[in-house]
Amino acid sequence: MGGLAGVTAGTSAICTCGLGNGLNYRGYDIADLALKAEFEEVAYLLLKGELPNKEELDAFKRKIISARELPRVVKDVLQSLPYSTHPMDLMRTATSAMGCVVPEKTDFSDQMDVITKMLGALPSFLIYWHHWHKKGHEVELKSDETTIAGYILDRLKEKKPLDVEIKAMDAMLTLYAEHEFNASTFANRITASTLSGLYSCMTTCIGTLKGPLHGGANEVAIKFVLQFDSVEQALEEVDKLFARKEKIMGFGHRVYREVDPRSPIGYELAKQLKDLPGNDPKLFDIAEAIRDKVKADKGLPDNIDFFGGLVYHYMHIERLYYTPLFIMSRAAGWAAHAFEQRANNRIIRPSSDYSGPEPRAFVEMKDR
Amino acid sequence: MGGLAGVTAGTSAICTCGLGNGLNYRGYDIADLALKAEFEEVAYLLLKGELPNKEELDAFKRKIISARELPRVVKDVLQSLPYSTHPMDLMRTATSAMGCVVPEKTDFSDQMDVITKMLGALPSFLIYWHHWHKKGHEVELKSDETTIAGYILDRLKEKKPLDVEIKAMDAMLTLYAEHEFNASTFANRITASTLSGLYSCMTTCIGTLKGPLHGGANEVAIKFVLQFDSVEQALEEVDKLFARKEKIMGFGHRVYREVDPRSPIGYELAKQLKDLPGNDPKLFDIAEAIRDKVKADKGLPDNIDFFGGLVYHYMHIERLYYTPLFIMSRAAGWAAHAFEQRANNRIIRPSSDYSGPEPRAFVEMKDR
Repeated sequence: MGGLAGVTAGTSAICTCGLGNGLNYRGYDIADLALKAEFEEVAYLLLKGELPNKEELDAFKRKIISARELPRVVKDVLQSLPYSTHPMDLMRTATSAMGCVVPEKTDFSDQMDVITKMLGALPSFLIYWHHWHKKGHEVELKSDETTIAGYILDRLKEKKPLDVEIKAMDAMLTLYAEHEFNASTFANRITASTLSGLYSCMTTCIGTLKGPLHGGANEVAIKFVLQFDSVEQALEEVDKLFARKEKIMGFGHRVYREVDPRSPIGYELAKQLKDLPGNDPKLFDIAEAIRDKVKADKGLPDNIDFFGGLVYHYMHIERLYYTPLFIMSRAAGWAAHAFEQRANNRIIRPSSDYSGPEPRAFVEMKDR
Repeated sequence: MGGLAGVTAGTSAICTCGLGNGLNYRGYDIADLALKAEFEEVAYLLLKGELPNKEELDAFKRKIISARELPRVVKDVLQSLPYSTHPMDLMRTATSAMGCVVPEKTDFSDQMDVITKMLGALPSFLIYWHHWHKKGHEVELKSDETTIAGYILDRLKEKKPLDVEIKAMDAMLTLYAEHEFNASTFANRITASTLSGLYSCMTTCIGTLKGPLHGGANEVAIKFVLQFDSVEQALEEVDKLFARKEKIMGFGHRVYREVDPRSPIGYELAKQLKDLPGNDPKLFDIAEAIRDKVKADKGLPDNIDFFGGLVYHYMHIERLYYTPLFIMSRAAGWAAHAFEQRANNRIIRPSSDYSGPEPRAFVEMKDR
């Protein structure tokens, strides 16, 4: 019963994971979605239940793009936050501030509008803060890029991204977009179940995702890979870790016993990026060797976080920004779950087993 | 299984509610705590497991008082937020901003320090924002009042509160301080279970509490009472509502079948305040008559939210501030649960029953 593992906490039509080792969003295979559809199509699918046609997709994207420019208040808040702010904390705070400035209607009739605009605004929070605090200037939030993936890369680096980079970022957004009743999504459904608004749901999600047992795994995995200069050195270190019975992040998964269906896609994306100018292809070889050794020695398959971190590294994204990128993607799944909870709601309120003191008489201050 | 009702989601030593209709914090009866102890003693009890002695209480209170003055950044954020901001949204945003300015250590070794200071800072968020936006000036956050209850009343109204008001506010803080695995507390334990920090836990809690099915009930209950000019009019309207099968907020409770043990205390507090200058004692009579009628006709007992709203009304507190006051109280219980979750952690990740489409082939854009 610990951690509600295996406990069914509700019904959902959004995603299957772990069934036959597959991962489907609304019935569609994750590999098809990651490789054949834009992230915006996937977000629309998650939110509305069906893939959009051309007209629907265009309207959806126009609204996302329209929300890249941030309200002045939110820019002021982002400027106020200290340089030392953790990127997840700024994402949580800016999301909360958006809820003050452009609140959702209390009857939720504009919920689709709110999440659509948040898909445009979430990247801008990080981009704006990054340039203000790290580069010392106010960034231009206009971009010719029409996709969220292109926008993130273009504005974060203020440099036109390569097509192969946009495609990789787009696929990564899709891979991380939804994953059934994971911790942040389930916490989000509890927030939704009190009939609180979507911005409250999203701050719950961001705060929950921040934990190193949830969103932070790919940051740790790449940090592990980056410390080695050679395959031999990496394999030696893995042996030492195993001897000390330590864990390597990016392997195994509570719901996938044999293979994380996202992993081979992450692997291919890293492979496509490794030989780009400025990238060190040796890191890929090191990661591959670690993956094979962990599988051979422990029977543990890699999960998406292992090669996922390398994909971001090969796009020259700061490590502390990986989990904020996770937000920009999972926001679609979170909102889909909030909508689903609202559509058939009962407040989520479990019980606990009591292990504390028996009833006892009050003790006056003088007798303590 | 809907809403996890009756499902045991973990073990806790903090609180029993619904057992023999009682409510105990760490084994002590709620009536004793509300009437014989200061809220600060109760908060300490919840957080540490035992009531403080004089020395421990004094040190705890000194630290709370030291945190009333807010960091400049948090004041700037509060100033930036629009006048129209919902008070719960400002509380969530300021809490999130505090996490950017004075973050918790990642090893959580300062967790007790963080929550102690937040008990001092939470009232200041509302007080500061209220005066800046509603009164047009920057409020002085220094006060001679040594309790949280006294501080809230003194600074919110910039007027020395009466002893009877301080005692009532103090008791209300204790009554709302903890309630086992309610929605916000359980969502908070999920956030804690990813090993995210205390500020993330608290933003989860605030966002979840904001929902009208959770924290907002006393606002709705008092609004209902306030619309009547006489007992007769109120009783007629209740009859009409019952004929339309409508619900009255402030009655019944998922865990208390016979009586909410906090209700008689809230009733007594309202009674003590009703004849103070500026208060309308008729409201008390109306509330009492509604309570008796709902019990007689439907067998439903009143819960703490019914007379609780009247207690705040008799202290001349704006209705939208009732749920922020709930935060200032429940923060102690929330943090106690976060600490307990951390001390014996497993990530909380349930499963769902899938009700969506069967696996289906990807459809190209041109065929949609």
